[in-house]
Amino acid sequence: MNNRKLIRDPVHGYLELNEFTVSLLDSPPVQRLRRIKQLGFSNLVYPGANHTRFEHSLGVMYLASLLAEKLDDEKMVDEIRAASLLHDVGHPPFSHVSEGLLKRFLGKKHEELTLAIKKTPVKDVLQAHGVRANKVIKHIVGESKVGVIHGDLDVDRMDYLVRDSYYTGVAYGLFDHLRLIKKMRFMGHEIVLEHEGIKAAESMLVSRFFMYPTVYFHHVSRIARKMYERAMKFCIVERDFDPYLLLSMDDSDVMVYLRHQEGFPGEIARMLDERRLYKRALYVGPERVDISWCQKQDPEKLEEEIAEMAGVDVDKVIVDIPPVERVRELEAKVITSEGVKKLENVSGIVNQLKAFEIENWKLGVYSPKEIVEVVGKASIKSFNVEKRKKQYRLDEVII
Amino acid sequence: MNNRKLIRDPVHGYLELNEFTVSLLDSPPVQRLRRIKQLGFSNLVYPGANHTRFEHSLGVMYLASLLAEKLDDEKMVDEIRAASLLHDVGHPPFSHVSEGLLKRFLGKKHEELTLAIKKTPVKDVLQAHGVRANKVIKHIVGESKVGVIHGDLDVDRMDYLVRDSYYTGVAYGLFDHLRLIKKMRFMGHEIVLEHEGIKAAESMLVSRFFMYPTVYFHHVSRIARKMYERAMKFCIVERDFDPYLLLSMDDSDVMVYLRHQEGFPGEIARMLDERRLYKRALYVGPERVDISWCQKQDPEKLEEEIAEMAGVDVDKVIVDIPPVERVRELEAKVITSEGVKKLENVSGIVNQLKAFEIENWKLGVYSPKEIVEVVGKASIKSFNVEKRKKQYRLDEVII
Amino acid sequence: MNNRKLIRDPVHGYLELNEFTVSLLDSPPVQRLRRIKQLGFSNLVYPGANHTRFEHSLGVMYLASLLAEKLDDEKMVDEIRAASLLHDVGHPPFSHVSEGLLKRFLGKKHEELTLAIKKTPVKDVLQAHGVRANKVIKHIVGESKVGVIHGDLDVDRMDYLVRDSYYTGVAYGLFDHLRLIKKMRFMGHEIVLEHEGIKAAESMLVSRFFMYPTVYFHHVSRIARKMYERAMKFCIVERDFDPYLLLSMDDSDVMVYLRHQEGFPGEIARMLDERRLYKRALYVGPERVDISWCQKQDPEKLEEEIAEMAGVDVDKVIVDIPPVERVRELEAKVITSEGVKKLENVSGIVNQLKAFEIENWKLGVYSPKEIVEVVGKASIKSFNVEKRKKQYRLDEVII
Amino acid sequence: MNNRKLIRDPVHGYLELNEFTVSLLDSPPVQRLRRIKQLGFSNLVYPGANHTRFEHSLGVMYLASLLAEKLDDEKMVDEIRAASLLHDVGHPPFSHVSEGLLKRFLGKKHEELTLAIKKTPVKDVLQAHGVRANKVIKHIVGESKVGVIHGDLDVDRMDYLVRDSYYTGVAYGLFDHLRLIKKMRFMGHEIVLEHEGIKAAESMLVSRFFMYPTVYFHHVSRIARKMYERAMKFCIVERDFDPYLLLSMDDSDVMVYLRHQEGFPGEIARMLDERRLYKRALYVGPERVDISWCQKQDPEKLEEEIAEMAGVDVDKVIVDIPPVERVRELEAKVITSEGVKKLENVSGIVNQLKAFEIENWKLGVYSPKEIVEVVGKASIKSFNVEKRKKQYRLDEVII
Repeated sequence: MNNRKLIRDPVHGYLELNEFTVSLLDSPPVQRLRRIKQLGFSNLVYPGANHTRFEHSLGVMYLASLLAEKLDDEKMVDEIRAASLLHDVGHPPFSHVSEGLLKRFLGKKHEELTLAIKKTPVKDVLQAHGVRANKVIKHIVGESKVGVIHGDLDVDRMDYLVRDSYYTGVAYGLFDHLRLIKKMRFMGHEIVLEHEGIKAAESMLVSRFFMYPTVYFHHVSRIARKMYERAMKFCIVERDFDPYLLLSMDDSDVMVYLRHQEGFPGEIARMLDERRLYKRALYVGPERVDISWCQKQDPEKLEEEIAEMAGVDVDKVIVDIPPVERVRELEAKVITSEGVKKLENVSGIVNQLKAFEIENWKLGVYSPKEIVEVVGKASIKSFNVEKRKKQYRLDEVII
Repeated sequence: MNNRKLIRDPVHGYLELNEFTVSLLDSPPVQRLRRIKQLGFSNLVYPGANHTRFEHSLGVMYLASLLAEKLDDEKMVDEIRAASLLHDVGHPPFSHVSEGLLKRFLGKKHEELTLAIKKTPVKDVLQAHGVRANKVIKHIVGESKVGVIHGDLDVDRMDYLVRDSYYTGVAYGLFDHLRLIKKMRFMGHEIVLEHEGIKAAESMLVSRFFMYPTVYFHHVSRIARKMYERAMKFCIVERDFDPYLLLSMDDSDVMVYLRHQEGFPGEIARMLDERRLYKRALYVGPERVDISWCQKQDPEKLEEEIAEMAGVDVDKVIVDIPPVERVRELEAKVITSEGVKKLENVSGIVNQLKAFEIENWKLGVYSPKEIVEVVGKASIKSFNVEKRKKQYRLDEVII
Repeated sequence: MNNRKLIRDPVHGYLELNEFTVSLLDSPPVQRLRRIKQLGFSNLVYPGANHTRFEHSLGVMYLASLLAEKLDDEKMVDEIRAASLLHDVGHPPFSHVSEGLLKRFLGKKHEELTLAIKKTPVKDVLQAHGVRANKVIKHIVGESKVGVIHGDLDVDRMDYLVRDSYYTGVAYGLFDHLRLIKKMRFMGHEIVLEHEGIKAAESMLVSRFFMYPTVYFHHVSRIARKMYERAMKFCIVERDFDPYLLLSMDDSDVMVYLRHQEGFPGEIARMLDERRLYKRALYVGPERVDISWCQKQDPEKLEEEIAEMAGVDVDKVIVDIPPVERVRELEAKVITSEGVKKLENVSGIVNQLKAFEIENWKLGVYSPKEIVEVVGKASIKSFNVEKRKKQYRLDEVII
Repeated sequence: MNNRKLIRDPVHGYLELNEFTVSLLDSPPVQRLRRIKQLGFSNLVYPGANHTRFEHSLGVMYLASLLAEKLDDEKMVDEIRAASLLHDVGHPPFSHVSEGLLKRFLGKKHEELTLAIKKTPVKDVLQAHGVRANKVIKHIVGESKVGVIHGDLDVDRMDYLVRDSYYTGVAYGLFDHLRLIKKMRFMGHEIVLEHEGIKAAESMLVSRFFMYPTVYFHHVSRIARKMYERAMKFCIVERDFDPYLLLSMDDSDVMVYLRHQEGFPGEIARMLDERRLYKRALYVGPERVDISWCQKQDPEKLEEEIAEMAGVDVDKVIVDIPPVERVRELEAKVITSEGVKKLENVSGIVNQLKAFEIENWKLGVYSPKEIVEVVGKASIKSFNVEKRKKQYRLDEVII
């Protein structure tokens, strides 16, 4: 039976699926991704940002196929296709939004992913096509030699940058992803970039540099996300909500659950629904606060400290210390006339962007509008905010 | 206080809001539109189609402003801006999806709209800016002389055609909407089209002609919609669900409600979630079935008749007889060298498309996969399906 | 040696060429196409329309490859690739602009094409790769069984519609060309369309319907083209210009040649350069003039008649009677449940557009601004213009 | 008389012209820009890059109007509109291509611009609308207080970046130009940027950073340009061609002139026509050659030296030492909480890009394919190419 399928994607055009990928797509864990927004609460800033993990996964599959077809290993191509469709099935509702929460209560690394993939019916589909679940998981978490789905220049990031650009309307995420893929190839199983692809790789990095502050770390979506996380934490701690449930719930389930809660979580749900958000009591970058000190703090303790100092309820104070992640692109391998080198060693701009990642970093303390001033004052003391020369050391800060 | 706001829209670029429109936007009934998908279940066919009534309303405001600024009547411009943002606040979850249902149980015309607009806080915002709610409602329902929001060539349709194209990735909805607006002007309060705008108006009509079968009436979204409506009807009739609630619920609320129902509605919710949909037992156009006879039937009676004939449960049979709507563009006024004429009288293609609307029409009978064959056979008898010459008369068919 | 090449095309993305197609591309007759505008003088209306036959040929090659790869005949795929790159090498400067002129003075059918392909160095490249020139020519002129380059639904038209849209900025030419190609396949060597591709085929036809009057037959580019043709004819007849030269000249050569002419041709060149164009003395459609009578007239005789009647120089009167071409798409084969049928028999809109092609037809008489009125009056007499019912018979009019 | 005009631009949509701008547009010096390609010989690399100075000038007018309307000075708005349409009328054929040549033989600064604007008929149009030519010229050359057309963040660059992206198909030039303009305003007559526009300004700078090596300084277009310049220089020196003529010639005139030359210039013309270009004998960046030493050399002397050393004709050696221009964006004024500051002082990435401009710099020596090796060896000696640490000082290098 010809089980081929053609799906229209506004970003990449027509996507073709074969019988194997159609079967995976039809499995409930992948269908669930239809109901999980790619950008969590970013639609409160960018009204068009309602796209889902489902279409992103399709896009990753498209790009992964373009790249993987250069491998002379049909088996591995199947693994990679499966990995592309499955790479987000372990995500909780609102995408990354409650990840911190999940990690905290679930603990084991990649457990949620393994749960989602190894349970039927996904496992059955994989088995029926002779694809081993463990291999697929390795591709997803970056433990495969072949960094197509998760690596220095992976198609996961390529798709989300161009896709998030498309749906937010922010041009910054666009870069020449097709040229980048055309100029990537495999040495053995390792991805290397031909020299003519350097500009495209640089432009991908620059895209991220712009998308982070403009979209991914826009203060309004950070605030909404943190409000939501706080409400969920409250339910887990005070109302015996089982965090394992998040792995099978979708955005609707969790939002409706919150709406029906009495007290604090219900109030937060109403505030999110009506876009009545906490405001910034403090919002400063590394030029005013010690970023490496911040990274070592426990936000909850600081919330208590600030709340006490300001004389307000601790529920009304949210401390947001975003992590600073290593820029993986730096490590990408490039073929030069003098042999294979790291991208950061052949590209001036890439080398500079190490520090820029940090310059986009912002510490936030958020509160209801009415108490923003007192909370702000307390925060300044707590964080010892001052006019300072940048004094962080890159290696102390980046995780 | 400068309360201006700039919102990024992927379709029209930057949208500017002033204090009045920001206040309306911030009202809960408009914020609720963020959580109601523009195209209901169409994302089961087009994975990108997750856009909402909220962004559509912003887009309508943008286009309405472009057009209304040609009026020399600042008061009316404010009314029209309000109408653009509010024109969908009476919509139930999943947009049009359950309208039929609503009409049936709520009855009074425009009641849902009036309820949403006349109750606080929208009413307060309107009053504070000296805009009368009744005037706004008239613009929305097409009882105003000025057909900007609802008329022969209205901006509501313009926005949804280009927006639905953008998010589905289907090029058909694109047409030269900017030229069309540039070539529209007011004679008194009536919109007329300059001669140079005819091609643009024709192309809008053609867009609709293609978008209807490809997107709006795609059988998969019709089936999903009908399954959902059937589940909701069940809850209203059998489980005392109050249909008035739909006016304040959003897509999440209603979907989660269904998921938690036992029996038939819960099963439908799971099927929708996992995209296990009814299939077409019968799917024919006017060349095989008497369309004017169909329009007069009660689908419920036919469902019972077919179920009985096929020996299956009536829950497993859905009869879908879409209405055939009058093509409003036909009536658009055009300035010609021989005076103002109707568009259908100056444009050959527009005139022809009267009949085409009907050619895109399809009667559907839908059932679970397992019983599609028996239901199909019964349906053929019930509808007296045969090879026939087209014998409908336009005026008998169009409502 | 790896002689692969990657070329960036704004319309289709990256185009890949292999050694064979690179060699063809590097031949002078194909490089000449870089200097021949696709749309002749249309840039006088649409300033962006400066694209060339060269990029169009690359685009045709891209689409042709997509389609031809479905053939299981590597030899023929090579022929078709060659045909795509070479299909326009017989074009004179300004593309179609002077075709009529050429046909008149050169006479033999396809002679210019044959000359350009069979002479070295193109011939050498073909031979070196074992591709027969005669086969290539047959693909181009539509005498091959395989209508990829020239047929009922050919990729030549697909490319120019989307490309001309891109560069003019007119949205009308966009249609779902990728879907159309995906839904085309070969029965033997004949192209047939799967049922799911009908809407895409219809939309291609509609694109043409809109592009013709808006772009291809815009009166300003018709006028400029006709002025240019008149000047060239003058040079051939009065100044012994050898029309064979046109086959190796480009837009620059011919324009500079005209600029350096004394008298009439030089004046026309200056008028074109400064966009001082003739105006419409008469411009009417089939509702006012007998189109089938028009098709049988000799424009030169009518020009003389009108000039005499108006008392003006015959150089100042241009009669433009565009041909009405058969809509080839009508004949496209479609697979239906009842066997293979013609597109016009399964699609209502396609069937209707037969007549629409004629409704877009306009007879024009053009003159310098100062004498437009007298020439107009004389033209009305000459053409017996009146208010008439449409009375043409399709089969009498279409060529 | 209503002399308004609507022009379709693929980049910005519909452009509106009033009577004044229509009159300017209709003047021969502006019409001539239709026949001068914006990117010279870049279409040899990017086949779509056939756009002209004419459409660019329209685009600049569109953006300039958006910005200038924030000035409360209708007189100056008219000046700026005129400046936008006229800012390129002094350009020779092939845009920037022969500028160096022109400067060398014409000498006086801005003389070509002044000649084109102050002579009739442009002057007449300006006078008729009460606009002073001198003021217009000042806007163009950057001597006006109001840097709309020529300044730190000017609309000239904005338009060409997005336009060149559109026609080359290279995504790099896209940035959020609309946001940038929305966030610019006037303090007195000086343009300042609101804080929320910093990202948009940064992204413009980054666009340039990518467009320079990818498009503007692509070696193939550099080579073609240099070949052309060499041929023209030959004609001026050896064949008494009057360089003043370039100011009224267009791309066609000059190319056809070269084609008809015997010997060297004619051969160069044929090579350009058939894309048989010189190759890179040497192509190195500042990491291998002393960039500040290079900037002080006379290329002609080096060409002679290298030719002699290699034992080849000096016509076969082209030395290309591109200038390094100051990044004007650095000086843009930004409103911050601590007063107005320079962009380079509030943006890390902008500050870094000072050096990047240099990293994109390449010294080239070009020769016919056959002698590339000997010329390369001689060049290495002449330029003392070695592996070196970067040792340039920014202030020594940038002009």
